[in-house]
Amino acid sequence: MEIYFDNSATTKPYKEVIEETAKAMEEYFGNPSSLHKIGIKAEKKITEAREFIAKSINASKEEIYFTSGGSEGNNLIVKGLAKPGHHIITTSFEHHSVLMPYEELEKNGVRVTYLKLDKQGKISLEELENAISKDTVLVTIMHVNNEMGAIQDIEKIGKIIKEKSSRARFHVDAVQSYCKLDIDVKKMNIDMLTASGHKIHGPKGVGFTFIKKGIVLNPLINGGSQESGVRGGTHNVPGIIGLHKAAELSLESSKSSFEYVKSIKEYMINRLGEIDNIRINSPFRDDFTPYILNVSFIGVKAEVLLHLLEESNIYVATGSACTSRTSAAQGSYVIKALGLNNKEVESAIRFSFSKFNTKEEVDKVIEILKSSLTFLRRVKR
Amino acid sequence: MEIYFDNSATTKPYKEVIEETAKAMEEYFGNPSSLHKIGIKAEKKITEAREFIAKSINASKEEIYFTSGGSEGNNLIVKGLAKPGHHIITTSFEHHSVLMPYEELEKNGVRVTYLKLDKQGKISLEELENAISKDTVLVTIMHVNNEMGAIQDIEKIGKIIKEKSSRARFHVDAVQSYCKLDIDVKKMNIDMLTASGHKIHGPKGVGFTFIKKGIVLNPLINGGSQESGVRGGTHNVPGIIGLHKAAELSLESSKSSFEYVKSIKEYMINRLGEIDNIRINSPFRDDFTPYILNVSFIGVKAEVLLHLLEESNIYVATGSACTSRTSAAQGSYVIKALGLNNKEVESAIRFSFSKFNTKEEVDKVIEILKSSLTFLRRVKR
Ligand SMILES: Cc1ncc(COP(=O)(O)O)c(C=O)c1O
Ligand SMILES: Cc1ncc(COP(=O)(O)O)c(C=O)c1O
Repeated sequence: MEIYFDNSATTKPYKEVIEETAKAMEEYFGNPSSLHKIGIKAEKKITEAREFIAKSINASKEEIYFTSGGSEGNNLIVKGLAKPGHHIITTSFEHHSVLMPYEELEKNGVRVTYLKLDKQGKISLEELENAISKDTVLVTIMHVNNEMGAIQDIEKIGKIIKEKSSRARFHVDAVQSYCKLDIDVKKMNIDMLTASGHKIHGPKGVGFTFIKKGIVLNPLINGGSQESGVRGGTHNVPGIIGLHKAAELSLESSKSSFEYVKSIKEYMINRLGEIDNIRINSPFRDDFTPYILNVSFIGVKAEVLLHLLEESNIYVATGSACTSRTSAAQGSYVIKALGLNNKEVESAIRFSFSKFNTKEEVDKVIEILKSSLTFLRRVKR
Repeated sequence: MEIYFDNSATTKPYKEVIEETAKAMEEYFGNPSSLHKIGIKAEKKITEAREFIAKSINASKEEIYFTSGGSEGNNLIVKGLAKPGHHIITTSFEHHSVLMPYEELEKNGVRVTYLKLDKQGKISLEELENAISKDTVLVTIMHVNNEMGAIQDIEKIGKIIKEKSSRARFHVDAVQSYCKLDIDVKKMNIDMLTASGHKIHGPKGVGFTFIKKGIVLNPLINGGSQESGVRGGTHNVPGIIGLHKAAELSLESSKSSFEYVKSIKEYMINRLGEIDNIRINSPFRDDFTPYILNVSFIGVKAEVLLHLLEESNIYVATGSACTSRTSAAQGSYVIKALGLNNKEVESAIRFSFSKFNTKEEVDKVIEILKSSLTFLRRVKR
């Protein structure tokens, strides 16, 4: 039995997604920019995908741009908007595809305010409000944190930004929330948003970015006239078709999956009660996603525990996959940003669920966790 | 019968590529950056692909970076290297994913020299040599032009650049030549190179960029530590596996496919001799790729002819797919850059072949061309 509790790193594509993607490689192989039928056939599928995705976040189809994933989308927005002299606001626990572009911009004369987080991973709305000035052009805040699962109150944040400034644009990294939490870009006052296929049982290498009508971004990838000139490059037609399918399947069961995964998380937290000396970094509460359960096993090095679990075919993470090597060695910058102590940081493990996980898997994980921890904690003494 | 003579726009993926890609979505769904077995399994496949591709151009595997395609690769190189005050050299008929970033750079104080082309689409090596100055940091020249098929003498160009400057880097857009012409980055003195999966019967949305060891580029997509920090974003594992397969299949028959396609082109040019008042813009010569045959049908609007051919399920192009809308209306900027007259520009059609095309298809195309032209030219009088 393989137990995959690493669904925030990436998910296994739906069977239907694999089938549709393969079929598309065969049937819709044309270049959507070609003027002939084979191109137009492919273009139609892209338009269908665009319409579906637009509707799923209450946007219009002209506002959806297909990308190679969440990282490209975040770079497009962050680098495409801010210029020297501008001010931007973000948090210190965003994904690296937000933080690294900001670091670049800081070197080039953009001022960046990093909002602090409390131990629950929540920003202070007051601090946000005070940080917005007349120079603020962009506020980037992730919807759901990918390491410890805190949900920000996007609607309240959007409201504060709009009330305080007519200039500042609100950018939401929704890579971990799209198809899991409700997103309504109008109600939430979101100006730009990024999402990624492989986090919703869709294909890798494809995602989308919402950019509200009227906002002009400097393209990240200049080229042909694809995506209204905002994103050059031949369309990844099969990827987009697969993304469409994945969004369809994920959204149609979104509510029931959410409730189901919630029951899994609740069950696991309850069973973790049988283990001493741990800290639940993402409690069972409405302002934490049920899809992520981050736990510190005090006195144990997370990476060692990860590999012990792996020996029983249980797959978890020490932090974000894309910074796994550094976080394994130094502890996650996200967990650090919460102000936890060293012992809590270095022992943090992320379990992340999908609707395909089961309580039986949780039982097995608890069993192996118990024996591993007994072993590791005994060895240490 | 469908006749697809638009293989420079995009190609139909090999059956084996579709199978491998679908299999990879199932079996290698892990995030290669994850620390556990499922991630490592995926990472291994990427390393295999990287090694194969490196070898195919005589590079080492640390010099290969996976991207979302040719456009991203070109943007990465062009935007990643040149800074205000720098000088760069290119030609006026590069792909838009090169020209548009250069236009951006020009606005920001980078000086760009556009080399002229003769009627055969060849640059003057003397003009190139004279253009290189102490400020020149980058020379971008495509290997095979995507609209009319001119092959530049990359080895000679590489030699001239190295002899004239120790600073200038040589960037080759090999999107239309990879797996078709021999490429040896060492022998040809190439510093950076871009290629794309979907032009070699591989998947869309994936490509690679070669960056010679020691060259430091500003990342286009900042993020995690993937691709040595040069390209953030979760790896498109199935895409990379499919690219690997496509390169394997294309390279193993590279020589015989080349000869075969050459015979197709020769045959078509011969048969075009039966049609009056045309201009072969990409003759049957060693310095033109056999994969592209660009022809002006004087007195006819290319787009009208394209749609007439389409009615008989024959698929061709008026120019590059990604600028098809403007080139259909205004004529291709590439064909214009050759200094052809208006009538020649507005009537230019690109036939582009693959090893899956046949002489029977050529016969059918000639037949339909004849009747279409008789009709169109009669209507005009
Ligand atoms: C919150 C968040 N943003 C952005 C990304 C990047 O998305 P992608 O892997 O599609 O580049 C990820 C995941 O890797 C993520 O979890
Ligand atoms: C010469 C050339 N360069 C770059 C590209 C862009 O490649 P991609 O479609 O993978 O972005 C193309 C084709 O579209 C091309 O023909």
